[in-house]
Amino acid sequence: MSYKVVGKPYIRLDAHDKAIGRTKYTDDLCDRGALIAKVLHSPVAHGIVKSIDKSEAEKIPGVVAVYTCFDLKEKHLYPTAGHPWSMDPHHQDHADRLLMTDHPRYHGDDIGAVVAEDEVAAAQAIRALEKNMVIEELPFVLDAREAMKDGAPQIHEHWKNNIIGHTDMHIGDTAKAIAEEKDLIKVETWCKTPTVQHCHIENFLCYAYGEGDGRTVIVASTQIPHIVRRVVGQATGLPWGKFRVIKPYVGGGFGNKQDVLYEPLCAWLSIQLGGRLVKLECSREETFICNRVRHAVEFHMTSWVRPDGTFAARKCEIWSDQGGYVSHGHSIAAKEAGAFPQLYPCDNIDCEAWTVHTNKPAAGAMRGYGMPQASFAWEIHTEEIAEKIGMQPLEFRRKNLMPVGYVHAFSKNELYEDSINQCFDKGAAFIDYYKKYEEYKNQPKGDIRRGIAVSTYWYNTAIYPISLETSSCRMVMNQDGSIQVQIAENEIGQGADTVCAQMAAETLGVTMDKVHVVSCQDTDITPFGTGVYASRGTFVMSFSIRQTALMLKERILKYAHEYVRMPVFNMDIVDNWIIRTTDGRRLMSLEELSSTAIYHMTNSQHMTAESTYTIKSNALSLGACFAEVEVDIPMCRVQLLNIINVHDCGTVINPALAEAQVHGGMSMGIGYALSEKLMWDEKTGRALNNNLLDYKLSSFMDHPRL
Amino acid sequence: MSYKVVGKPYIRLDAHDKAIGRTKYTDDLCDRGALIAKVLHSPVAHGIVKSIDKSEAEKIPGVVAVYTCFDLKEKHLYPTAGHPWSMDPHHQDHADRLLMTDHPRYHGDDIGAVVAEDEVAAAQAIRALEKNMVIEELPFVLDAREAMKDGAPQIHEHWKNNIIGHTDMHIGDTAKAIAEEKDLIKVETWCKTPTVQHCHIENFLCYAYGEGDGRTVIVASTQIPHIVRRVVGQATGLPWGKFRVIKPYVGGGFGNKQDVLYEPLCAWLSIQLGGRLVKLECSREETFICNRVRHAVEFHMTSWVRPDGTFAARKCEIWSDQGGYVSHGHSIAAKEAGAFPQLYPCDNIDCEAWTVHTNKPAAGAMRGYGMPQASFAWEIHTEEIAEKIGMQPLEFRRKNLMPVGYVHAFSKNELYEDSINQCFDKGAAFIDYYKKYEEYKNQPKGDIRRGIAVSTYWYNTAIYPISLETSSCRMVMNQDGSIQVQIAENEIGQGADTVCAQMAAETLGVTMDKVHVVSCQDTDITPFGTGVYASRGTFVMSFSIRQTALMLKERILKYAHEYVRMPVFNMDIVDNWIIRTTDGRRLMSLEELSSTAIYHMTNSQHMTAESTYTIKSNALSLGACFAEVEVDIPMCRVQLLNIINVHDCGTVINPALAEAQVHGGMSMGIGYALSEKLMWDEKTGRALNNNLLDYKLSSFMDHPRL
Repeated sequence: MSYKVVGKPYIRLDAHDKAIGRTKYTDDLCDRGALIAKVLHSPVAHGIVKSIDKSEAEKIPGVVAVYTCFDLKEKHLYPTAGHPWSMDPHHQDHADRLLMTDHPRYHGDDIGAVVAEDEVAAAQAIRALEKNMVIEELPFVLDAREAMKDGAPQIHEHWKNNIIGHTDMHIGDTAKAIAEEKDLIKVETWCKTPTVQHCHIENFLCYAYGEGDGRTVIVASTQIPHIVRRVVGQATGLPWGKFRVIKPYVGGGFGNKQDVLYEPLCAWLSIQLGGRLVKLECSREETFICNRVRHAVEFHMTSWVRPDGTFAARKCEIWSDQGGYVSHGHSIAAKEAGAFPQLYPCDNIDCEAWTVHTNKPAAGAMRGYGMPQASFAWEIHTEEIAEKIGMQPLEFRRKNLMPVGYVHAFSKNELYEDSINQCFDKGAAFIDYYKKYEEYKNQPKGDIRRGIAVSTYWYNTAIYPISLETSSCRMVMNQDGSIQVQIAENEIGQGADTVCAQMAAETLGVTMDKVHVVSCQDTDITPFGTGVYASRGTFVMSFSIRQTALMLKERILKYAHEYVRMPVFNMDIVDNWIIRTTDGRRLMSLEELSSTAIYHMTNSQHMTAESTYTIKSNALSLGACFAEVEVDIPMCRVQLLNIINVHDCGTVINPALAEAQVHGGMSMGIGYALSEKLMWDEKTGRALNNNLLDYKLSSFMDHPRL
Repeated sequence: MSYKVVGKPYIRLDAHDKAIGRTKYTDDLCDRGALIAKVLHSPVAHGIVKSIDKSEAEKIPGVVAVYTCFDLKEKHLYPTAGHPWSMDPHHQDHADRLLMTDHPRYHGDDIGAVVAEDEVAAAQAIRALEKNMVIEELPFVLDAREAMKDGAPQIHEHWKNNIIGHTDMHIGDTAKAIAEEKDLIKVETWCKTPTVQHCHIENFLCYAYGEGDGRTVIVASTQIPHIVRRVVGQATGLPWGKFRVIKPYVGGGFGNKQDVLYEPLCAWLSIQLGGRLVKLECSREETFICNRVRHAVEFHMTSWVRPDGTFAARKCEIWSDQGGYVSHGHSIAAKEAGAFPQLYPCDNIDCEAWTVHTNKPAAGAMRGYGMPQASFAWEIHTEEIAEKIGMQPLEFRRKNLMPVGYVHAFSKNELYEDSINQCFDKGAAFIDYYKKYEEYKNQPKGDIRRGIAVSTYWYNTAIYPISLETSSCRMVMNQDGSIQVQIAENEIGQGADTVCAQMAAETLGVTMDKVHVVSCQDTDITPFGTGVYASRGTFVMSFSIRQTALMLKERILKYAHEYVRMPVFNMDIVDNWIIRTTDGRRLMSLEELSSTAIYHMTNSQHMTAESTYTIKSNALSLGACFAEVEVDIPMCRVQLLNIINVHDCGTVINPALAEAQVHGGMSMGIGYALSEKLMWDEKTGRALNNNLLDYKLSSFMDHPRL
């Protein structure tokens, strides 16, 4: 299939405005007279609030209102994960949050909130509350495997041994396979990934105000406006339609903003104050611990390998550290467990995964949704196996990779092409892998040594069939034949609007300058969709964009039939013209057609189309990464010399944006591997480095040429 | 037909927010850092600008840019009337405006503009330009009949004798009728109505800024957002889809904002400055003369009446003062002329109407679109006839009123009921007209005397079949079964949103609290419509609201069919429930249906509907007004003692709002009749009282109980 618009590296639609600084983010839109809300966070990792004396805080000039967990008359537990909802209670996310709690589960948990006329008064009031709060400390636990033990502190009553999810999966018969075969080489790997945070540029913030009689508008930096509306409804116990959520431009999310964060509290505060405008902004310090983090995961992997380099049996144990609240919960560890059998298939597999509460910040979605942790563990283990059995590690991988035609049992995703091997070929050639591998293997055993390695991954984008996949689109044609496109798969910095415009232009037959994407989502008017996450944006929006564009095209051609007299099946739209397909002749411009339709005295039509597409498939993405490093062993210093990522992304809608995505991913990967780690004070459970000075975020300066 | 929601006096949807002061108007939304634009107005009533030295103005600190008519490289003439467009050039409004002109046609015409960082710098720059402008004065004319004479100043080259429109209508044979009958009594009336202005609370303002690559957003206090988009495109020569017009809440329009005012200039200024945010706000003084005014009209009416009080022949001449630009042009005088034969039909009628340029501010639409002027003239004439032939004036009217079944030749509007007589009956009884008429007729002939009189009117709302009548609607259902409604017939203070919600709730079968009207129109997303004017809002929106609600209902019931298994034709929606019509049993709540549809794993549907309705009918409205006055003859002082309006409005959607509309109309009528008049300096053509101190606007204090 050949494309005119898709596949071209169009400049982002938002590039110009962002470059000159006039793009409006949430804070740019908030009226300067907004009241300022600040949250009273728990000073202990686990405890029971006994009392809070508000009087000192209330007396501070500029303080408008002070609320604590004891002021919450109606206690509506609500879930926060940015998942589609389900009418089946068994498929609904677990509701374990309160707007404010008297039982804080981590150092930083939300106990109260103040609203003041300015930042200073709000901060003073928070300090006054901290001073006048009586809290009974409870024992706490920071390690997932410790938390599972009998006698560990019970963090939520609901879960036995703090285990909120357990996957237990068996393929074949591992014990029998191990017992039957001789000469098996057993390789065992333990490894752990740290807690990291998304560190998007724009900290989370939102503001809320009353509108009309009893509605509340929430403007938020979120990936999931329609889900925020639902959750705010759940958290306040009010009808969901009483809330309107608006998402302006967003300065990054990476999954953190795929959770509902402080939107419910901010809306509730505004409602308490009769609909006054209240802004709640997280500091960077709060963003680190009071938003979401990436799950720290511990892996124990064992493989029984035959001398020829094939697997006889494999075993994997996964402990995922959920922190104090469920958020996305077990779905991350479950995804890791479910993916384990696929990359290097084996007839006999045991896999167990546990997701466990600890007294740490709640872990949620983060770029890759568990797969970076899993890929890290798998590929370390793979490297160790190759070393132990004395095989070239890339060749060992090639030998065991899932074959073309492999179908994933659950998603029914099929591997259509031998993509990973192709990625291996390209990457190895680019970085001269085989030669360097031999060279470094034989290098002198000095303090400073070099190494080269490869890893691979697979990931299925979007969440079908685990959960609902739906996307909706509306298109509106203007008199000049240009169109607006509305979708809920929103721009959060990743380029969603641009690929949306390309797909719309391609299907409809118009040029890119004729497509205007309505970038700001507003749940009152934007067609329903669940937002952007799970690398789903481009994939899921494509279905409703194409379906809707085809509907609009059909409507246009039917209307044009009256004027150009050609049968609809002999017409098409090419470069903003209605053409005759038999000879390509231009019959009528879209501009003329649209104006004629709008201004027709007896059959006026504003040309629009709108539709929902329920997606029933999924897309595999695959790739490989080659990295060359120099390690100063006594100094524990790793220098990344060279890195290359090779991906099979399917049809690339916009190569420039896809490349930028990969670069961003590599940058985050470098930080994750080499420098980033949230650390905890074992005595208090407090985060030690929840700021951008002490948390060693990977930056431009730390990268080789990507 | 009985209604559940329609016909009830619901409180306005916007009442709460307006009462507590949080409603956002255009100025509330504009960023405080906006650049300020001010217009250089003509200091002469007619002239040719020879030169303007910009250097002094440009040197003023804070001045960003100075533009004059000589900087306009591309001269795109554009029309300003808020009429639907037509693809037929003969039905397009006349384009006679430039953004800035070197040939000012009235004292106040637009010659240049400055953009500065603040109001003070902008005002200084305007004064500097005024000082450094060389302008050749031309003769000017302020009276329409003078302007028609040979040798009068030619205001636009295009029109001979300044006549932009002439209606010449003949029914029967007037000369023959007069010649044939004896005993005819000839009654002749000359009268004139003054120029008045709309005086809405919120002066016109707008702001514009660039968005994306090459688009311009205009936020304006307008009645006609979609028309503004078209005209800004015409005025700048850019594709219409490159503009996006947003209409927030509006503080009144009354037809003034049914013209495109300074939106094109403001958008052009922003474009010149690379898309910077530019605000252009009219002062009250500018609003009076640089926006639009009501046409001053002179009438000459002659009737030949038989002694029995019937008409043998009638003649009417109308001269309408258009001012310096066409704007709505001849359509107002044409409406007056077209309406003349209908109120008191006669077999022999001559009617001529001229619309004529003068060197005064451009006249445009204002409440009633020419009919107040015409009704005033007709009813004065009617009163004089009754007096002359010695008949009781109300009985004389009853004798000659259009009969039930009368069909208007052009619009095909039929008079279905004897409404005017019914209004007469009700009004006369309320004010005790007949008794007071006799009493005052026989009162002593002192300096202070009382009188009572009646007048009537008819008006056809909306503009079919003169021009396109179209309305569009979109409805979006939320998970809780509430809906958003989007229409282009916008809220400008008259209550459009509330009646929209009532009609939507009625047709769909939901309660009022479940309807959320999207009040802010945005041409990027609001279904196409031409705005609110010609008393069309409620009438035209009703068609698309009903059609769209029925589409949405059908879609809901079809989806519900899967769950409740009843045939669609045996179901309906009542009070937010899907019911079985055979026994009224509740089958499923809309909330459950909507959530089920949205979250359905295999058939997810967001329930929306959207449609256009091309209106092919029109509605007559009729009424009568009784007023009782006391006149101090030597002092020329009129005191209004009592006034009552009686209307046939058809089915009233919201009695409280309809009553408020009548009260507002009465207030404007009182001012129009007794105190309001824009006056002109005959030597310079300058307005003498274009401010709210000297212009005697009727206020609350001047009214009796309405």
